[in-house]
Amino acid sequence: MTDTSSLPVRRGGRAARRAMRTAPRFDMLPGLEGRLPLTEVMDGAAVDRIDAASMHILENVGVHFRDPIALDDWRRAGARIVGEIVYPDRGLVRDLIATIPAQFTYHARDPNKNVALGGRNSIFVPMTGAPYLRDLDDKRRYPTLDDLAMFHKLSHMLPAMHSSAHHIVEPMDHPISHRHLRITYSSMKHSDKTFMGMTTSPKNAEDVIEMCALLFGAEFMETHPVTTGNCNGNSPLVWDETMLGAMRAFCRRNQPVLCSPFVLGGANTPASVPATVAQLNAEALSALAYTQLIRRGCPAIYGHYLSTVSMKSGAPMAGTPEISLMNFMIGQMARHYDVPWRTSNTLGGAKTFDAQAGYESAATLAAVIHSGANYIWHSAGWNEAGMHCSVAKFLVDAEQCAMAYRMAEGVKWDDFDQALAAVADIGPGGHYLGHPHTQENFQTAFFMPELFDNNAIEQWVAEGAVEITQRALDRARKLLADYEEPRLDPARDEALRDYIARREREIPAADELNQDR
Amino acid sequence: MTDTSSLPVRRGGRAARRAMRTAPRFDMLPGLEGRLPLTEVMDGAAVDRIDAASMHILENVGVHFRDPIALDDWRRAGARIVGEIVYPDRGLVRDLIATIPAQFTYHARDPNKNVALGGRNSIFVPMTGAPYLRDLDDKRRYPTLDDLAMFHKLSHMLPAMHSSAHHIVEPMDHPISHRHLRITYSSMKHSDKTFMGMTTSPKNAEDVIEMCALLFGAEFMETHPVTTGNCNGNSPLVWDETMLGAMRAFCRRNQPVLCSPFVLGGANTPASVPATVAQLNAEALSALAYTQLIRRGCPAIYGHYLSTVSMKSGAPMAGTPEISLMNFMIGQMARHYDVPWRTSNTLGGAKTFDAQAGYESAATLAAVIHSGANYIWHSAGWNEAGMHCSVAKFLVDAEQCAMAYRMAEGVKWDDFDQALAAVADIGPGGHYLGHPHTQENFQTAFFMPELFDNNAIEQWVAEGAVEITQRALDRARKLLADYEEPRLDPARDEALRDYIARREREIPAADELNQDR
Repeated sequence: MTDTSSLPVRRGGRAARRAMRTAPRFDMLPGLEGRLPLTEVMDGAAVDRIDAASMHILENVGVHFRDPIALDDWRRAGARIVGEIVYPDRGLVRDLIATIPAQFTYHARDPNKNVALGGRNSIFVPMTGAPYLRDLDDKRRYPTLDDLAMFHKLSHMLPAMHSSAHHIVEPMDHPISHRHLRITYSSMKHSDKTFMGMTTSPKNAEDVIEMCALLFGAEFMETHPVTTGNCNGNSPLVWDETMLGAMRAFCRRNQPVLCSPFVLGGANTPASVPATVAQLNAEALSALAYTQLIRRGCPAIYGHYLSTVSMKSGAPMAGTPEISLMNFMIGQMARHYDVPWRTSNTLGGAKTFDAQAGYESAATLAAVIHSGANYIWHSAGWNEAGMHCSVAKFLVDAEQCAMAYRMAEGVKWDDFDQALAAVADIGPGGHYLGHPHTQENFQTAFFMPELFDNNAIEQWVAEGAVEITQRALDRARKLLADYEEPRLDPARDEALRDYIARREREIPAADELNQDR
Repeated sequence: MTDTSSLPVRRGGRAARRAMRTAPRFDMLPGLEGRLPLTEVMDGAAVDRIDAASMHILENVGVHFRDPIALDDWRRAGARIVGEIVYPDRGLVRDLIATIPAQFTYHARDPNKNVALGGRNSIFVPMTGAPYLRDLDDKRRYPTLDDLAMFHKLSHMLPAMHSSAHHIVEPMDHPISHRHLRITYSSMKHSDKTFMGMTTSPKNAEDVIEMCALLFGAEFMETHPVTTGNCNGNSPLVWDETMLGAMRAFCRRNQPVLCSPFVLGGANTPASVPATVAQLNAEALSALAYTQLIRRGCPAIYGHYLSTVSMKSGAPMAGTPEISLMNFMIGQMARHYDVPWRTSNTLGGAKTFDAQAGYESAATLAAVIHSGANYIWHSAGWNEAGMHCSVAKFLVDAEQCAMAYRMAEGVKWDDFDQALAAVADIGPGGHYLGHPHTQENFQTAFFMPELFDNNAIEQWVAEGAVEITQRALDRARKLLADYEEPRLDPARDEALRDYIARREREIPAADELNQDR
């Protein structure tokens, strides 16, 4: 007798098919395997020129590692050090980064949601770090733990989001020193996708790693990446103790970090696109190399936060042509070193979810796809230069990512001959809507965005003249009403809760809430 | 003694430099010479597969030429014809399109505004054909001749617009049968950039060509393109008498037309990306070939209007992934045949200038740039699927085109070494704002969009919380206040006015206004 228990049950009939069509689809899209040719704006000589400039910067300008342990590590590795400035030579840097895996897989709580990263494999990750949100009523206010849970639920349900990230918004109703515990638990509990880990201090990072060990097992983590930390550099050419300590907490346990120079082009870099890339590349290389001093062979990701600043106000801008050009170039550099790389997506600088936010976000998304980024962070919700996460924009960005995903998959030729036969069937002057090929393929042939209204204005007015912000908020409410919490093994859940309770007893909540910041 | 009268006068001093910096800059950007590598989603075999499919369609499905003169022309050329269906074989088609120039130059009234088209040379052209506008108060209403003049003035002043197009909006206050005369005159009078010519009937097209002859001289036009007609096909595979007659009026006088299949993917094409491209390609080739039957060697442009339709409502959509993919493919096909090509830009389907319009427009713009389109039409103002032209969007789109232009120019390396020297000067932990290299280069290194607000929310609120629509409308009013009409030779102006007066006496204004349409 054949065991069929693991096979999907096939329910027959038109009703079942209709139910399938109309049922909300929350299934995660698999990790993206890009098939578009990438936009490479440099030839080999130009790549070598950036590489040589970056190596020259490392050897002659140096990098400030404001951290005694890191300085000791570099000293043991044979780097030249003067004061706290490390001048790693190119041979050492190349040797160290050579052991970073070109590709690896994130293991999620639901193994069906594991995602590959590196090469042509990419994932979309929601924004994080917003001190404000625009909520389900589009009201701008401080976020709470409940708001954070809401965003984790939405991340769980939106197909193009491959991660629930970590502090999408800052839960201001909980003491700062305890937040990392609740944030991590919220990511783990409300979604079974991969997630990020807090790096706000070395101790906090260690807590995250311990919680991951409770969820996945410490031994499993030794050979399987399950989370991601982000370590921002201080451009130009500085890495501080907090970030380096957090980096060690992750790398020692074989968990990847994003090595992210924080670049405001023109303010903390020269007013030049290629020189900004050369400096950023030197900064990223110095941190990537350091991950391999912590643990040889540990996965690591070439990162950056990248903006250009308005010379009128010093404010960061989004969607500018130079950000796109730099993304194209940085993608080439990361591929030159054969290291996965992270960029930022769908960034808006507008104060509301207006046309500015739309242009900025879509321009950023296009550049990200054409540059072949792997870890595509801040892919939903980012507006006001990251000062708030907008629920409405979160939904629309996620749909835009699904559309970009479709584009990045390239052209589907599988039914080309059948479709051409339809051309012969229809002939000059006919129409295709009733043709069997159209009937069979219309649902997959052309993407139909749910949050865009393409009706005639008369119908739009008759339906209440609802603009995109309200349409997206309505959709968010519906999604949340349909949310089902993914099952979490009760023993692991209890262990996580016990850990949080213990650590909250141990860690003083001295700084209390920071509602007044 | 050296004659210095034609050299620019150099006014010294800080005041002069400040005046230069703060003076509004209305100078047209030169025609774009793209330097980004293009996104080519097909290898040679796939290009050949589309080509073979299109040729098979032409030879076996045929094209309906609803026009006795065109049928006679095809018959004389040796094409197989059954009824009104022409079945041109691939040898004939290839022979005919071989004489279309790969590149040519549009001659504008101001020779400084001549622009090259074809190869890597591209131009941005405003939208046309809107039956409504959203005006300087964002009110949606019927347009007038004054509104049309306003858009021609704005086209004249916006640096990234390379053309004043023709009927950006339909002047509903003038009889239909006389409109083409006033529209053409408005394009010619309010701007000295190149412009488009009406193709609403063969007779109207002839009037446009006569007016061009009055402006440029009939003999000059025999060897110099000065305007562009658009001829829409009726997909699938139909060209009608109006369009073919207008095409003849242009081609006989050596003026290029856009051969534009009007494609609503899934409605008048199969529900398949590559099969839609194969059909569209067959349609475009049939018209391109016909231009060469009219006049061998006449310039012509591979065109299309391309959308996918919502299978919920049948409405055309914008900014979808398949439109981008088809643009990438069509660009490759046009380059395969070595013919300049036209696509549509910054298309919005939103009813207002909201975030939807922003996402759609920017997604379209990105695809257009990465696909290497030459004649980039509908580059400003298009919203509501072309039902209205928005003044606010017109301004923002034009700035977005300027940003895309900058991106398409690629990376500037000229000051790379000086900028790297700044990295050494500043060192780890410094900042660049006061460095001489920054001071000298910040105005050109990073684009600063004027219509995007990147200030902190506190400042934005203090300044009245002005959203992008109002900012753009304020800017439009300022531009219009600064408008200066370019000088038009009085004798030619009089000749044009006389021509219009005569033709308006000759042509019955029977149909009157169509305010009730």
